[in-house]
Amino acid sequence: MVKINENYQKLQKSYLFSTIAKKVEEYQKKQPEAKIIKMGIGDVTLPIPTVVTEAIKKAAEEMAHKETFRGYGPEQGYDFLREKIMQEDYKKRGIDIQMDEIFVSDGAKCDTANFQELFSEDNIIAITDPVYPVYIDTNVMAGRTGKFLEGKYEKVVYMPLTEKNHFIPQLPKEKVDIIYLCFPNNPTGTVLNKEELKKWVDYAIQNESIILYDAAYEAFIEEENIPHSIYEIEGAKQVAVEFKSFSKTAGFTGIRCAYTVVPKEIKYDLNNMWNRRQSTKFNGTSYIVQRAAEATYSEEGKKQIQKNIAYYKENAKIILNELKKANLQAYGGINSPYIWMKCPNHMKSWDFFDLLLEKANVVGTPGVGFGPSGEGYFRLTAFNTKENTQEAMKRIQEIFK
Amino acid sequence: MVKINENYQKLQKSYLFSTIAKKVEEYQKKQPEAKIIKMGIGDVTLPIPTVVTEAIKKAAEEMAHKETFRGYGPEQGYDFLREKIMQEDYKKRGIDIQMDEIFVSDGAKCDTANFQELFSEDNIIAITDPVYPVYIDTNVMAGRTGKFLEGKYEKVVYMPLTEKNHFIPQLPKEKVDIIYLCFPNNPTGTVLNKEELKKWVDYAIQNESIILYDAAYEAFIEEENIPHSIYEIEGAKQVAVEFKSFSKTAGFTGIRCAYTVVPKEIKYDLNNMWNRRQSTKFNGTSYIVQRAAEATYSEEGKKQIQKNIAYYKENAKIILNELKKANLQAYGGINSPYIWMKCPNHMKSWDFFDLLLEKANVVGTPGVGFGPSGEGYFRLTAFNTKENTQEAMKRIQEIFK
Repeated sequence: MVKINENYQKLQKSYLFSTIAKKVEEYQKKQPEAKIIKMGIGDVTLPIPTVVTEAIKKAAEEMAHKETFRGYGPEQGYDFLREKIMQEDYKKRGIDIQMDEIFVSDGAKCDTANFQELFSEDNIIAITDPVYPVYIDTNVMAGRTGKFLEGKYEKVVYMPLTEKNHFIPQLPKEKVDIIYLCFPNNPTGTVLNKEELKKWVDYAIQNESIILYDAAYEAFIEEENIPHSIYEIEGAKQVAVEFKSFSKTAGFTGIRCAYTVVPKEIKYDLNNMWNRRQSTKFNGTSYIVQRAAEATYSEEGKKQIQKNIAYYKENAKIILNELKKANLQAYGGINSPYIWMKCPNHMKSWDFFDLLLEKANVVGTPGVGFGPSGEGYFRLTAFNTKENTQEAMKRIQEIFK
Repeated sequence: MVKINENYQKLQKSYLFSTIAKKVEEYQKKQPEAKIIKMGIGDVTLPIPTVVTEAIKKAAEEMAHKETFRGYGPEQGYDFLREKIMQEDYKKRGIDIQMDEIFVSDGAKCDTANFQELFSEDNIIAITDPVYPVYIDTNVMAGRTGKFLEGKYEKVVYMPLTEKNHFIPQLPKEKVDIIYLCFPNNPTGTVLNKEELKKWVDYAIQNESIILYDAAYEAFIEEENIPHSIYEIEGAKQVAVEFKSFSKTAGFTGIRCAYTVVPKEIKYDLNNMWNRRQSTKFNGTSYIVQRAAEATYSEEGKKQIQKNIAYYKENAKIILNELKKANLQAYGGINSPYIWMKCPNHMKSWDFFDLLLEKANVVGTPGVGFGPSGEGYFRLTAFNTKENTQEAMKRIQEIFK
C-alpha cells in the first residue's frame, strides 16, 4: 500500500492572496463605482523590450528550419547565455565566476525550492521573518521543520526583521546549518550592506553552514556599499549559493528564466551535486527563452531594461515620499520595488488592509501574511502605473492628514 | 554543520553516452575518412511546424506591448492550453478528464522525476528492466532504493523485459507500492495491449499501489488495441497518474512543454498534493511555450506533426525490415521510434557496439546501458534522415549477409 509523504499535512494553507481577492471582490460588489487601485501585486507590468521579443522571433524561425533546428539542449544552459551571465553579471563587477558554476533554469522559485534536496533531513534551517514562503514550505515538504505550533514551525530558526533591528537579521544564538537570505528583501524591500552580509559569511565559515542567497531583486539596488552579489564578500565562495532571476530584472515573470551560481570551491562538492540533480530531474530551459535572456544583455536591451526599472523605482520613491508626508513610517523602496510600511496607531495588518480598502480604495498586502513578525506592517509595491501610484498616495494622505 | 543528502552517493555514474561519444571520437580520429551514421540519439531532428513557430512569434509580439503583456501565469498552465489538451487528447478518445486534472509543465522528465516527492521514503518501487534511468535515479536521491549491489539496487523490484516474456512485464510476486510503466517503451520500443495493461490497473487497485504511466511516445502508436492513454482502462483513474509530452509528439525537445494528468478520484488526494507541490516549487511554463503547444492542436499543426511522425516511422520500418532481411532479431519500431535488436551470436551489447562502429561505421546504444536485462541487446533510433537510415542498413546487411 502506498504511503504518502506525511510532511505535506504539516503545510499551512495560505489564504493570503485568496482572502485579499475575496475581500476586494466583495467590496467592489457593494461599491461598484469605486475605482480600486491594486498595489499588492508582486508582478511586473511593463512590456518586454523589443530587442528581446525580436530575439524570440528569430529563435522561433530557427526552429522552423532543419539546418537551424535545435532539440535537447544542455541541462545546465547554453554556453551563449552562461558566457553573457559570467561576463556581465560577474566579471564586470570584478567577481571571478566560471561558466561551469552557472546553472540556467526556468525560475528562481524552482531553484530556491529544489536546492534543499541536496541536504539531509536533519539540518536546522534559518529564515528571516517575514519571509518569501517558498523557502519554508519546501522545507516543510522535505520534513525539516517539525510541527506548526503557535504560529511557527518548531525546528525552524526565525530571524525577525523589524523596525527595532532596522530590518537587519541578527546572527542566531543556536547553530544553524542552512541559512536563507534574500536581499534586497522580499517582502520588506530593505537591504544588507557589505559589513552586515560579511557577518553572515563569517558565521557560515565558522559554523560550516551554507547560505542560500536569493538576489532576485538585485537590479533595483542604487545605493553604494550594497552588494549586488554575495560573492563581493570575501570567503563567500566557500559557503554561499546565489540565485538570480530575469523575472524582476527584465520583466520575465511570464517568460521564465533564472540562474543559480554554485561555486566549485564551495564545500561538500555541491557544484557536482547540483549538476547531477539538474541533469537527472531537469531537461534544460527552452532554447527560445535562453535566446531572449541573452538579448537582455545587448546594449539596446540593457538600456530598455534600465528604463523600466527606473519607472518602477520612481513609483517606489513617490510612495515613500508621500507616506512620509502623511507621517506614516515606511521602509524599503530605495533599492527595491517593495515598500514596507508600519500600520499607524498600532493597527494590525488586516485591520489596516480593511481600512485602506474601504476609505482609500487601495489594496496592499498585510505584512502578517509573510510571517508572525510581519504583524503590524503592510506591503505596497511599485508595479502599478505612475498615475495610479500618485492617485493612491493622494487618497492615503487624505485619510491620514 | 551542514549534512548532505547521503543518498546521492549511492547514485551510479552513468558513463553510457559519454563512453559512446569517446569511442566514436577515437574511431573517427583513427579513420578520418569514415562516414559515421549516428542512430543512438533519442532526440528529434525535424523542424517545428510553421504554424507553431508563428504562434511563438505572435506571443512574443504580445509581450512587447503593455496591453497584451503577461506576467506570472497560473502554475498549473493556462486554460487555453489545458482546454485543448482535455478536448483533443482525452474527450475525443471518449475519456472524461477535467481541466483541473491537467498540469502543464516544462517537461515529462521533470514531472516523472518530481512526482515521487508526494510519497514517503518507505515505499517499494517497481521498474521495468531495461528502463529510462530517470525513474530509478530520482528514487535513489530520495532514499527509496537502498544500496547498489551486484548491478541492482537492493530494495527496488526489477521487472525484466526480454525476448522470453515478449517484453511484457510480469506482475511482481512481492507487493510493490509505486509502479513505473512507460509504453510505448523507452528503450525497447515495445507496447502493452489493453488486456495486459488492465492486469496492472487491477493489481494496483487490489494492492493499493499507484501506477506512474509515462506515455511520452503515444503519438507513434499505429496498431489497434494499444492504449493511447492508461485511462482507456477501466478503473485506471483510481490508481494511475499519466505523463505526456510535446517533445516526441511535436518536436518540442528544445522548446520544452509537457503535462501530467492527476485524476481527482485517484487515492490519497494526490490531485491536491500535486497542485500544492507545483504551486510551491514551480512558477508555470513560459507563456510563449504554452502558445506554441496550443498551436500543435490546430488543423495545420496536426497535419504537419503527423507528417513528421510518419517520416520517423518510415525510418523505423526500414530498420525493422532490413534487419530481418539480414536475419537479425529486432523488436519495437512499429508503435515507436525505437528498435530494440538482439545482438547476434550471443554477443554482448558493448562488443556489438564496437563491431558496428568499426565494420559498418554505425553508432547505436548498448542495451545494457539501460539495465542488466538489456545485456545482449542494442537500441537503434529512427531520428536520422531516411537516406542515412537506408545507408546504415545496407552496411549492416553487408556484415551479416
